[in-house]
Amino acid sequence: MNVSKPQSRFAVLAAGLFLLSLAMPSRAQAPDSVSGFLPSHVEAERQLERKFRLIPDAAHAEDDLRHLTSQPHLAGTEASHQVAEWLRDQYKSFGFDAQIVSYSAWLPQPREVQLELVKPVRRALATPEAPFDGDPATYDQRAVRAFNIYSPSGDVTAPVVYANYGTLDDYRELASLGVSVEGKVVLARYGEGYRGIKAKLAEEHRAAALIIYSDPEEDGYAAGDPYPQGPWRPMSGIQRGSILYTQIYPGDPLTPGVAAVSDAQRLAPAAASDLPHIPTMPINAQDAAVILGSLRGKHVPHGWQGGLPFTYHVGGSRDTQVHMKLVMDYAERPLYDVIATLHGASDDQWVILGNHHDAWVFGAADPGSGTAGMLETGRALGELVRSGWKPRRTIVICHWDGEEPGLLGSTEWVEANRAELQAKAVAYINTDVGVAGPDFAASATPSLKDLLRAATREVADPETGGSVYDSWFQSTENVKEKEKPSGTGSQVVTVEASVKAPVGDLGAGSDFSPFFDYAGIPSIDMGFGGDYGVYHSIYDDFYWMKHFGDPTFGYHVALARILGTIALRLDEADILPFNYASYASAIQRNVDDLAARAARQPDEAVLLKPVEQASEQFAASATRATDALRMISTASIDPANAEKINRALPEVEQALLTPDGLVGRPWFKHTVYAPGSYAGYASEMMPGVTEALDRDDPVTLRQEADSLSAALLRASAQLDEIARLARAMPTPAPEGH
Amino acid sequence: MNVSKPQSRFAVLAAGLFLLSLAMPSRAQAPDSVSGFLPSHVEAERQLERKFRLIPDAAHAEDDLRHLTSQPHLAGTEASHQVAEWLRDQYKSFGFDAQIVSYSAWLPQPREVQLELVKPVRRALATPEAPFDGDPATYDQRAVRAFNIYSPSGDVTAPVVYANYGTLDDYRELASLGVSVEGKVVLARYGEGYRGIKAKLAEEHRAAALIIYSDPEEDGYAAGDPYPQGPWRPMSGIQRGSILYTQIYPGDPLTPGVAAVSDAQRLAPAAASDLPHIPTMPINAQDAAVILGSLRGKHVPHGWQGGLPFTYHVGGSRDTQVHMKLVMDYAERPLYDVIATLHGASDDQWVILGNHHDAWVFGAADPGSGTAGMLETGRALGELVRSGWKPRRTIVICHWDGEEPGLLGSTEWVEANRAELQAKAVAYINTDVGVAGPDFAASATPSLKDLLRAATREVADPETGGSVYDSWFQSTENVKEKEKPSGTGSQVVTVEASVKAPVGDLGAGSDFSPFFDYAGIPSIDMGFGGDYGVYHSIYDDFYWMKHFGDPTFGYHVALARILGTIALRLDEADILPFNYASYASAIQRNVDDLAARAARQPDEAVLLKPVEQASEQFAASATRATDALRMISTASIDPANAEKINRALPEVEQALLTPDGLVGRPWFKHTVYAPGSYAGYASEMMPGVTEALDRDDPVTLRQEADSLSAALLRASAQLDEIARLARAMPTPAPEGH
Repeated sequence: MNVSKPQSRFAVLAAGLFLLSLAMPSRAQAPDSVSGFLPSHVEAERQLERKFRLIPDAAHAEDDLRHLTSQPHLAGTEASHQVAEWLRDQYKSFGFDAQIVSYSAWLPQPREVQLELVKPVRRALATPEAPFDGDPATYDQRAVRAFNIYSPSGDVTAPVVYANYGTLDDYRELASLGVSVEGKVVLARYGEGYRGIKAKLAEEHRAAALIIYSDPEEDGYAAGDPYPQGPWRPMSGIQRGSILYTQIYPGDPLTPGVAAVSDAQRLAPAAASDLPHIPTMPINAQDAAVILGSLRGKHVPHGWQGGLPFTYHVGGSRDTQVHMKLVMDYAERPLYDVIATLHGASDDQWVILGNHHDAWVFGAADPGSGTAGMLETGRALGELVRSGWKPRRTIVICHWDGEEPGLLGSTEWVEANRAELQAKAVAYINTDVGVAGPDFAASATPSLKDLLRAATREVADPETGGSVYDSWFQSTENVKEKEKPSGTGSQVVTVEASVKAPVGDLGAGSDFSPFFDYAGIPSIDMGFGGDYGVYHSIYDDFYWMKHFGDPTFGYHVALARILGTIALRLDEADILPFNYASYASAIQRNVDDLAARAARQPDEAVLLKPVEQASEQFAASATRATDALRMISTASIDPANAEKINRALPEVEQALLTPDGLVGRPWFKHTVYAPGSYAGYASEMMPGVTEALDRDDPVTLRQEADSLSAALLRASAQLDEIARLARAMPTPAPEGH
Repeated sequence: MNVSKPQSRFAVLAAGLFLLSLAMPSRAQAPDSVSGFLPSHVEAERQLERKFRLIPDAAHAEDDLRHLTSQPHLAGTEASHQVAEWLRDQYKSFGFDAQIVSYSAWLPQPREVQLELVKPVRRALATPEAPFDGDPATYDQRAVRAFNIYSPSGDVTAPVVYANYGTLDDYRELASLGVSVEGKVVLARYGEGYRGIKAKLAEEHRAAALIIYSDPEEDGYAAGDPYPQGPWRPMSGIQRGSILYTQIYPGDPLTPGVAAVSDAQRLAPAAASDLPHIPTMPINAQDAAVILGSLRGKHVPHGWQGGLPFTYHVGGSRDTQVHMKLVMDYAERPLYDVIATLHGASDDQWVILGNHHDAWVFGAADPGSGTAGMLETGRALGELVRSGWKPRRTIVICHWDGEEPGLLGSTEWVEANRAELQAKAVAYINTDVGVAGPDFAASATPSLKDLLRAATREVADPETGGSVYDSWFQSTENVKEKEKPSGTGSQVVTVEASVKAPVGDLGAGSDFSPFFDYAGIPSIDMGFGGDYGVYHSIYDDFYWMKHFGDPTFGYHVALARILGTIALRLDEADILPFNYASYASAIQRNVDDLAARAARQPDEAVLLKPVEQASEQFAASATRATDALRMISTASIDPANAEKINRALPEVEQALLTPDGLVGRPWFKHTVYAPGSYAGYASEMMPGVTEALDRDDPVTLRQEADSLSAALLRASAQLDEIARLARAMPTPAPEGH
């Protein structure tokens, strides 16, 4: 087939619309259709879903969250073990086959965290978070002191340089001012990306140490009323967090690519390329004000001034110095994943839901809201089984330990079970901060974005009376005007500006990463966001949720309903509702962008030609598969072929993996999506090719372009096989639409 | 002539390029040409200009500024009289015919200015500006206390509502929050337009009083280091300023349209429509922090948070109340304009330069830098005369009194001399804040923008070694990235984003307004801007200029050179270098925009048809005049015809006046440009039509469209007459380019 590109693009889009008529609800479609279900099965699915959605309730979610937030439960501690046991018991009581799976990971705990201003005056810093009388939890002495997990120990006294957000651009700006950070302490504010990238860049620029602080402009008083008057970060609030270089690989640092079981072969810590090398610590705004306020030197560049009440300076001279001392106790510590299974009529395919259970302190929003929501999903599914329903496929609900240090529990489980997951997993549905407000946001693989949108149409927004989809659609109409403060959570959505109810691409920052980036399991990540300034602080507690995040727990219920609706559709579908026409469009848009970039360099443009051809072939195959699938009808369905199609559909994503992974970070195997090496949590499309273009590195570009093309051709062949299987079923008599 | 619009536009632009070959320097042009000069006269003009530009020097400018800032010299005080006498004597010593012209204007002085917080606690506010030991001037007890001139007296105790910048949009936002300001004290921050519009809007929304404060985000610590560490506003710094409704009419409030001489007929103050009716006062950021910090009520909308270190709230409840007491002593007070004349070979045409001399306190940047620069222009012109040169036309240099209260001195002088000015004035060149940093900025009538640019190519930037034009061009390459804090001066440039070295349209805020808006004299306004946070405060003093604004006084010299270069070109030109092709382009662009706006309303679209036709006719006439003018050569010039052309060229601007003025503000007579009624200092094109469209007012729209069309047709006829005169000269033999 030899079509010119614009035509083929149009064909894909047009074909996508036809597929929708089988696989997706749309306004143009008969109201009684449901994506993936043959007409004769739609009513049963609708009844099942309605029954399901009546079960989750706010009182249950509130009770569960109260229990989950009753004590600090950091990964690697006994409290985390207790939460895992409680979760396992909950699922057992719902009728699930539930167990704890344990790993042993290299995991530090802080023994000493000291910071003092040495010059111009001596003053102790590293002040703790202030307790508030109305909220006794904030007095809890078990809360871990604020630290950046995976920082090495260290003892540094040096001048300070303010580096804005500490991004690559910020270091370039410092260089243009003639300011070096070599041997100095970098002071950077949170925001504009993952803190582990700030640490990596500070290390690469030979800083002696790094301090990361919460500027009130980002999530403090300049964003809104601070806790306990409002939901934003008070001056003493500290954002804990990992600085593990998860952009290189997540999970236990000593066992990349294999499960961290007791007898696993382990790297020496010095050989672990995702461990940082300079001492790094987080501080609150009140400490930052002391340091920043005493910095001299040049006035900061435009855009570097934050919300503290004085003029920011770059610093760098010996007039302002700090002394930082960190003592970290590194050891192998246990992780406790909870794996709860509801067996289907067949165990051959699994629909997997997941959320982590470890928390920095109490973790009401992060992750308790997601945990409480998912528990309600599990409870409701259990009720359905009790009332006689039997799932068609198997549903697995996972609660991960060690997400906060660096996706440890999920990564180790995926590494342990990779082959079986790749054979059986239909999809992985993640929620982390399930509820921090009323604003739905999500990321997903392109093939599942429509399914996700469809599910949100079925669930009421507890405040507006319309559906969650309606509120989401409306809130994104003014997204430019209402830009949210950055850096307040792991939910980072790359918004396509022109799309209403936009579903972002999967980046990093939560447990979908091993499923998607490493194992090629089609994934979704979702949650309700909002005015959430207490991220990773002691204040992310039950009081915060009850007063600000979700006082009625209505959004917890909405979350449970969306999760369950998606699970039931994937579980019960006649033909799994994957939309590869959308995937092909997303790929072609990005290939066009890359080709436009490369056009300036003829050598690079040549290297991209195979990618362009493979992308066209993928698009053509997606069209053929889509056309063939829409011909399947109730009359014609052949169960054996349908099973083959249903096994093949999710595996198109795996065909996009490259076995050796990306150049320089082999753990990341997906050729189309990865978190950017320097892009924070954000997703990067065609990461190998994109970063090789960024660096003007033709050798890597050729290698990455070749593996991307090969992956696209494999996926294309997989789609052709699906088309062949679909066409092998007898075609129905033509009907009008 | 019946050409379709796109063709006619193209013809105008193309013709403009030909005109340049006679009238404008450009890269494509022979290097020895000078706009407006026949080839045989170019070298003499160049020599004259070079001689002129060698004379102004930094030591003179510094001495003059030191003298001008030696005491506070508010309009209406004896100190202002003393400055006028000194200036008159300076020009006399340069060889000018110099005199003081006096008027008597309705001018208040503050007797009591009190503000206190009453609830939640009682606290005295209206704190004064803090003195600094290094700068004895800041201890001067003669500085006028901070007030807003033309506020009425008043005594109000009421709750406070924060209204962001107090713009029309801000009141709409308050209304959408359900917050009324009726009977309350509005607290608004400086920025986003003229403070007199804030006062008018507060009055229209039935506020009891208005407080305007300087938020540190605008021109305080968030912009850069505050005085005396840097050039920005300290926490105690207050922006004094007029709230006279100069958007209705400027000048003495009791004598609109006539000179405020002793026996003039005067309005009763209650009948003066430009006098505000609610008590209004300015405060510093430290007082604002006390009030704003105690406001409760709703969290402010997005974009309303400023730079003070707490969350801003809208307020409005009785929990926060202030008591304001103002006692203003209104009386007729004397103004002293200085008019210095250098007579030309003929007195029939005048090139006028102007700058005000009254100051809020010491007025180093505003207006002393402009005064010191213009004095050097005058001294250098005097030296040229002493060395034997005789100006061709007459040069008049004016220093106005009473600019700060509302352009009083200039307006009264223009009203007194309107007929003579309209007969004789070639152009009016204004500078106000002549130097507040290194960044050249200017506004002008479209016909003089190229002349202005050409003059800046002849003058060196004292810091870069290139020309002022080069620095200006380069600085506007990144104008989007480097956006300046707003509200820091009267130099407001409406930047055309796509133009390098952009020259704005003339708005309001300085003494060009009566010349341009009222008398139709082609005008230019210019100055060097920069990091200027001490506007209208006690800190705008000699120390500030010597440490921050222009330590070497090199930009004062550059200003004098640009002013003089423009004056010499206008003075000596064979054919005055007006570019009406540019004017036609500007008009057609705006007519297209208005037509596009009106297209949604067929009734309104019909009313704009005459404007569209008149605009096309104006463009065609501009093309014809341009073509005819470029045929004039040394060989063919006819002195009598040339004189007629030179009288006619500036009068095209007057043809654009409408005798009855704009509907609702008859003092403003220009149909193409006016300051916007609610647009702050910014210029509004075709103001009558634009504002009628804004209000959906078809009756006014018809009236304004008709008077605009008539004006364009008059100007078109004037251009046709110029073309006829030019064609009447014998044409030269054709030459190649």
